[in-house]
Formats: sequence, C-alpha cells, structure tokens
Amino acid sequence: MRLATLRTTFGTTCIRIEGEGIGVDLDHEDVGALLAQPDWRKAAALSGEPVAFLPEDLAPVLPQPGKIICVGVNYARHAREMGREQPEQPTLFIKFPEALTGPFDPVHIPPFAQEQLDYEGELAVVIGQRAHHVPAARALDYVAGYAIINDYTLRDFQRATTQFHAGKSFYRTAGFGPWLTTADEWSPGEHARLRTLVNGHVRQDDDTDDLLFPIPRLIEFISSLYPLNPGDVIATGTPEGVGFARDPQAFLSHGDVTRVEIAGLGYIANTTIFDAAAPALD
Amino acid sequence: MRLATLRTTFGTTCIRIEGEGIGVDLDHEDVGALLAQPDWRKAAALSGEPVAFLPEDLAPVLPQPGKIICVGVNYARHAREMGREQPEQPTLFIKFPEALTGPFDPVHIPPFAQEQLDYEGELAVVIGQRAHHVPAARALDYVAGYAIINDYTLRDFQRATTQFHAGKSFYRTAGFGPWLTTADEWSPGEHARLRTLVNGHVRQDDDTDDLLFPIPRLIEFISSLYPLNPGDVIATGTPEGVGFARDPQAFLSHGDVTRVEIAGLGYIANTTIFDAAAPALD
Repeated sequence: MRLATLRTTFGTTCIRIEGEGIGVDLDHEDVGALLAQPDWRKAAALSGEPVAFLPEDLAPVLPQPGKIICVGVNYARHAREMGREQPEQPTLFIKFPEALTGPFDPVHIPPFAQEQLDYEGELAVVIGQRAHHVPAARALDYVAGYAIINDYTLRDFQRATTQFHAGKSFYRTAGFGPWLTTADEWSPGEHARLRTLVNGHVRQDDDTDDLLFPIPRLIEFISSLYPLNPGDVIATGTPEGVGFARDPQAFLSHGDVTRVEIAGLGYIANTTIFDAAAPALD
Repeated sequence: MRLATLRTTFGTTCIRIEGEGIGVDLDHEDVGALLAQPDWRKAAALSGEPVAFLPEDLAPVLPQPGKIICVGVNYARHAREMGREQPEQPTLFIKFPEALTGPFDPVHIPPFAQEQLDYEGELAVVIGQRAHHVPAARALDYVAGYAIINDYTLRDFQRATTQFHAGKSFYRTAGFGPWLTTADEWSPGEHARLRTLVNGHVRQDDDTDDLLFPIPRLIEFISSLYPLNPGDVIATGTPEGVGFARDPQAFLSHGDVTRVEIAGLGYIANTTIFDAAAPALD
C-alpha cells in the first residue's frame, strides 16, 4: 500500500495511491493523522472518493512528525569519506518538521545560506506503533513503512560547531516522500539501491542494506532512550558521495535538481533556488 | 505574572499563580495551549475558579513544546572546564518533550543508564510569538517569559559519539518549571544568579547574564534557521560546575536531590531514583 499527503484547496488530505496520479481520499488530514489511528491499517484500506493529482500536489508525506531522528555516518564508505570512525552507538541528531518540504517542491535558500549546500539521500523509516524499550528482534513489527528523505545540509552551519543540528534543519529544505510504502510491501534487507543524482549525474549509489547500524538496532537503541510514536521518523543515514567530500567539492547551486531514488520506493526531486533578497520578517 | 501547568484528575490545566499553593484556573490544557492563543496575555489575566495545589501537582510548565533547543558551552568558565573553544555560532542540540518531567518529580533511571548521570542547571526562554528572521534588537519582543530547566545528561551516551543528543533526551529526566515568569516581571540582564545544589551542596553558581551568546543573539540566530513558535523553548546553556568536570568526577546517585534555582524564577528539585529492574516493553 502506498499512502501520501495531498495538498488541497482546504489544507491537506491523506490518500491511498492507486495508480499514476490517481488515489483514493482516506479523509484524514495527512498520513500522520492516519497513523495516529489505533487500527490505521484497516482505515487505510477503506474505500473513498477517487482523486487525481499531479506530483507537485504532494506535500511532505508526513508534514508534522513528532520526531525526526537522523543517523550520522551509518554507511561504511561515507564514514570513511567524512573521516569519521564508527562509534559503538549510533550517531543521532535531530531535524525539525519545519525543515521538511514536498517531494517535488523547489527549495528556496536566502543569500546568507548559499555557500555550502549539500544533499544526503536517505532511506526513512516511519514508526507505526508506539515503541519503548523494544528489542531488535521485534523492532520491525513497530514500523509502518518506508519513504525517501533528502537530509539537505548547510555544511558551513553543520560544521561551525561540534553539533550538526544548525546545518541540518534549515526551513523547507528536506524533500520527503513521495509516499509511504507500507512495510508489508517493502522491507529492508533486500539490497534496494539508493541513488542520488544532481542534474542527472549520479552522485550517490549504494545498497540500503549496508547500514552499519541496521534498522532493528536503530529502533532498539532509540527506543531505549525515549518512546517512539506513530508517525515518528528515523532518517537512516546517507551513503558516500556527498558534495562536501568530493574532490573537488561540489555544492548545490541555483537551479540544481537533486533527485533521490530508492528501488521500490519511487523518487523525490527538488530544485534548489537561490533567492536574491533576504527573507522578510515573519 | 506566573503561569503553571497543574495535574488534575482529568489531565492538566493552566493556572495563574496567586500565592503559595494558590492559583486561578485559566481553563486551558496547559501553559503551551494558553500561549497558542493570539492574545494570550489578555487570556492569562482573566479571572477564574480558585485552585489550591501542592508542589508535586505541578507538571512540566510546558509539557509538549514544539521545539526544545539547547545551547551548549554558553558560559565561559563551563566552556573551559569542558575543554571546548568558543565557536562563532551557538552550539545547538535538541531535547525532545518526552525528556521533560515536573519541577518536583522523581527521575527514574533504569539499570543500563545509571553510570554517568549529571545535572545542568539552566535558564529557559519560552517564545510567546512566532519569530522567523528576527533581528537581535527586537528579539526580546518575541519572548513570553522564563523558567528553569535541568538539562539532565547521560554523559556516557552524550560522549559515545560526536553528537550530544542521545545523552540529552532520556525519558522523563529534565525537571522544567516550576512556572513561567512572564517577561514583564523578569528579564535577563539583571545579573540573576543561577545555583545548582546536590543534596544541599552548591555545585553551580553563576550569573545568568554571563552568556557567551546572549538571549537576543540566540533568538536571532535560531530564527534565521527556522521559525520559532509560541511555546518553543530555548535552554540557554549551563555554567561551570557539572559533575563530569569536577575533580574527582561526581555523578548523580540513587536518592540524590538536584535543586536548580534562579533568583526571581523560583526553583526546581528532582530526586534521582535508580530503578532495580529493566523497564518493561511499552
């Protein structure tokens, strides 16, 4: 089953995708509201009004996750390219929901932040059931499904201090979607390939099964710290090939299209736009 | 004006404190729900049913902030004791709302996390009005008020990787309150003293006006990354004297009472309890 959040004249709605540009309106505000239902799998299977949509009508698949937990240096070759050793625990940092944008939205960057923009294509895990102190062996039972996220990064802000957060949560930069593919249709461990392309040129190409901390271990560790709730998101880390680590470095410029694709989950594609003027007070 | 969130038989309610153990019920779910009202200052001044309460009835002053942004190494002497240089930007990391607990609640720690528990007494700033791209000169206009937070830390989890988050967001550890003192009654820049005491012994004692990045600059910087919304919290950093940096190191043990007080804002006091058994699946 593929679930998406669609922009409408009156806000957003949650749809089940039935074919290219065709869905069924499930009458919830977004995928997050659906997942908050106790029996969301049954609710997701109900019939409803048919809707037609364009790719640009898709909102972030979950516009307001309670938590977005990102995992750093979780692919061996990327850890090496960034010059980092593998720690004994997963490296966690946080992105706020305000950083999310739709899977095909343009990403607007004001003048003061245009220096070191970078992509990080990632597999995102979406939680489907409250998980607190869950052992790895049972962790996948708590997963609703999977999607794609671009952990869009301002490297100069990420690296100005020891803590990544400031460079990882810039307003409306991280494409997220295009939809949630439920765990009964797609699961990790099947060597699904992740590729990131900038203007059609392949920049990242790796196997999402090569995680240093696999998804069950991530859920076990994170859920030992605090509960994970339905709709919470784990961005599992990015493979090698980020612009920062290339020789020469290759940051994103005005007009660049970043496409992230994972076999079986579709793709997202966001164009970076350099705004000429500083943003107004808001 | 002092605003608090009170636990009741039916959940929580927001009160205005009128005297010791006496308040007026403002008929909102919590202080966060009150701050979400467009004209919350007027709503906070209304009359209502009188209520009597005990300190232990107080919930985290905002139980569910949209964001809790913590600032690292923001006092000069603490930066030195932790061996860190002052960067050009504030050092930001995130605590989730699940980490909060009431100002006088016990803090329960399961066996696997009892090794390196530490306190960090801090001044918390609570946002009162949406702030995006706000210059420092006007930043204090966006503040609702101030409270006290203990940025309770698992040093072994904080320091296992480069990123602090895993050690900074442990379930129900961070006392937060006791109440919100509104910005018309208390403001930074008046040399208010922050003290942290463990079992009555002073461990931290510094002036909250000695921040390396003062509050207006923090709001300017953070609001250049993403919008701050009413009820969002900035924990402004801790002064020197944390247990990790003492010689010999002094971590929290079973039964230790950590009290954090800021002149004019009251105090919080939380007892650390070492649970004997591992937590059940939840």
